[in-house]
Amino acid sequence: METMNTSSILSKEQLLRHWQGHRFVTRRVIEAFPEKEFFEFSIGGMRPFSGLASELLSIAVPALKAIISRDSQPYTEEGFILNTKADYLQKWDEATEEINRLWAQIPEEDFEKTFNLFGQYEFPIYQNIFYFIDNEIHHRGQGYVYLRALGIEPPFFWERW
Amino acid sequence: METMNTSSILSKEQLLRHWQGHRFVTRRVIEAFPEKEFFEFSIGGMRPFSGLASELLSIAVPALKAIISRDSQPYTEEGFILNTKADYLQKWDEATEEINRLWAQIPEEDFEKTFNLFGQYEFPIYQNIFYFIDNEIHHRGQGYVYLRALGIEPPFFWERW
Repeated sequence: METMNTSSILSKEQLLRHWQGHRFVTRRVIEAFPEKEFFEFSIGGMRPFSGLASELLSIAVPALKAIISRDSQPYTEEGFILNTKADYLQKWDEATEEINRLWAQIPEEDFEKTFNLFGQYEFPIYQNIFYFIDNEIHHRGQGYVYLRALGIEPPFFWERW
Repeated sequence: METMNTSSILSKEQLLRHWQGHRFVTRRVIEAFPEKEFFEFSIGGMRPFSGLASELLSIAVPALKAIISRDSQPYTEEGFILNTKADYLQKWDEATEEINRLWAQIPEEDFEKTFNLFGQYEFPIYQNIFYFIDNEIHHRGQGYVYLRALGIEPPFFWERW
């Protein structure tokens, strides 16, 4: 289909790079936590950062797989509740590679299509993917407060690579 | 210019709606703070949420104006350090309208062009705009922790309108 390319401002590759840039920052936030506080420290009854990392891992690769296969399986954190920071970092790095691999399998024209992610979030796929990124930034912002409250300097928000 | 429209996944209008949806959530976070805590409460030596709201206001409209005029004036919070929550909400609503008005003045083809925003951030314009949104989500995440620490239920992250 030939069309005037005047209404589009972001490519699929740019969006992947944007997401992976944020995932790099989140990885550094995980690294910045002391082992014990990663699993135990929290404010106001919220989850410790390990719980947020489990959520982010439970979304990224499983959601892309679901989008590719159009499988509306429910959300689960099974397999992503880990025991050490090193386990989280390893899972994180595996997900980084897997995201790149899966991304290539989503055709550009599918980003506008609606899919009921996790049987619960019926939105255009591009909106679901922005939600993954925004949700990660949101929870990571929470992690920054935890680190500051622990007297630890967080990584620079703008250093993405 | 006619081109195969296969590499683009997001329109200018979709990005505006995405940003304004986030700005709606941030407005509700401002609203959720008690007057005193909006200006005084903080954790770990970070700024109170009024300080973050000043930053967000100092970026949104001034940055769009700078992008349109290609004026690399430095960042300043002058005019955006206000005295009451009601002042912030009013300024916020004015900015909402102004953003819509200014957005229409940025041609689609400019989003790929590089601009040295605030004389400091030399990036493609689409990256600068994503930065505004991400920065807002990031600091708002901080606001959610403040609210939880104050025993106040924050607005739903996913409720954008």
